[in-house]
Amino acid sequence: MMQLHHVPLCPYCRKIRLGLREKAIACELVEFRPWEREEEYLKLNPAAEAPILIDGDAVVCDSRAISDYLEEAYTKASLFGRTQSQRNETRRLMGWFDSKFTREVTDLLWREKLLKPLKGGGTPDSTAIRAGSHNLRIHMGYISHLFDTRRWLAGDEMSWADLTAAAHISVLDYLGSVNWEGFEGARDWYAKMKSRPSFRPLLTERLVGLKPPAHYDDLDF
Amino acid sequence: MMQLHHVPLCPYCRKIRLGLREKAIACELVEFRPWEREEEYLKLNPAAEAPILIDGDAVVCDSRAISDYLEEAYTKASLFGRTQSQRNETRRLMGWFDSKFTREVTDLLWREKLLKPLKGGGTPDSTAIRAGSHNLRIHMGYISHLFDTRRWLAGDEMSWADLTAAAHISVLDYLGSVNWEGFEGARDWYAKMKSRPSFRPLLTERLVGLKPPAHYDDLDF
Repeated sequence: MMQLHHVPLCPYCRKIRLGLREKAIACELVEFRPWEREEEYLKLNPAAEAPILIDGDAVVCDSRAISDYLEEAYTKASLFGRTQSQRNETRRLMGWFDSKFTREVTDLLWREKLLKPLKGGGTPDSTAIRAGSHNLRIHMGYISHLFDTRRWLAGDEMSWADLTAAAHISVLDYLGSVNWEGFEGARDWYAKMKSRPSFRPLLTERLVGLKPPAHYDDLDF
Repeated sequence: MMQLHHVPLCPYCRKIRLGLREKAIACELVEFRPWEREEEYLKLNPAAEAPILIDGDAVVCDSRAISDYLEEAYTKASLFGRTQSQRNETRRLMGWFDSKFTREVTDLLWREKLLKPLKGGGTPDSTAIRAGSHNLRIHMGYISHLFDTRRWLAGDEMSWADLTAAAHISVLDYLGSVNWEGFEGARDWYAKMKSRPSFRPLLTERLVGLKPPAHYDDLDF
């Protein structure tokens, strides 16, 4: 069976976990901390980063490469979109969340609050966290704006854009970084995502010593 | 004719400019500074970022989305690779340079030295520059390592992986941030990239008030 080596509460791994379930592909999850067994994981992925997908002889590294691989090797039920313009829009938003949002929010909040202490890198930088929280509100406004006129973030159908955005948001929500007040559109979209069966395993995941806020796994938050 | 709105000395724009020429697709280049005419460009790209490709009715934003678009809409001469494992490897390295290298090097050097002053954001942060320079040497070692056993970075054929890496390196080299000493493999690979006709326009590009080091456009550096 296919194996996904993943880090819990990692937005890039969560995106792939959601995609696998949405595509109904059976996959064994292997939890790891790449920074604790670097030598071993460097052989699988020279970046020593999660996620890593192992499918028979294929070892696929980098979350975007994995989403492309799943699309090409398991074509049924495309999550990119059927038309060229739909695929352009899905990818624009994947780029938005995996580059712009990552730089402006995820790297400042998730990397500081969770990854840095886990890796023994010291205490979070409060300036970074303030900037990340400020930027997050701008992006929440953008999600609300998108959902105002669309059924899903990239258009009429759920796509990798929704999975990418929800993966990032879910981790920040676990860390208590998301203030939903005033972002009704974003909240409605995220409630829709949370209610999908693919989301269930993410909502029940817990990190020892770090409890999420009470609304985290509440479908009606 | 197709139009690419681009920022000079932007690694993401340079990657697409190289890809267009390698695929022999005619394209008009429109230089812009998105941060100076934000209102106008927000309509084209809500991220107000370069590059933006306009091809008839299609407006394609985000450099990765553009490379995928060019591949799907202009299929001849694939730059991703013919086999699934080749495409996985190309994409792993695109992710390496556009995510890991970006976070560890480009954001600390290009964003600090060039983009920040251009946007009126003040003087570069010397701690960031020191960290970026240190990290760059690790990545130069990795490029040398790859080129040691391969004809191109991702395998036997030139791919988006080479274009992505060379686009980043070319900007850093313009800024005088690359010390080639001790990285023979990386130097040989980059000399091979520089000698391609697609690279010529990048080597002759100059930013007013900012001269590149003498070796920048030298094919035999």
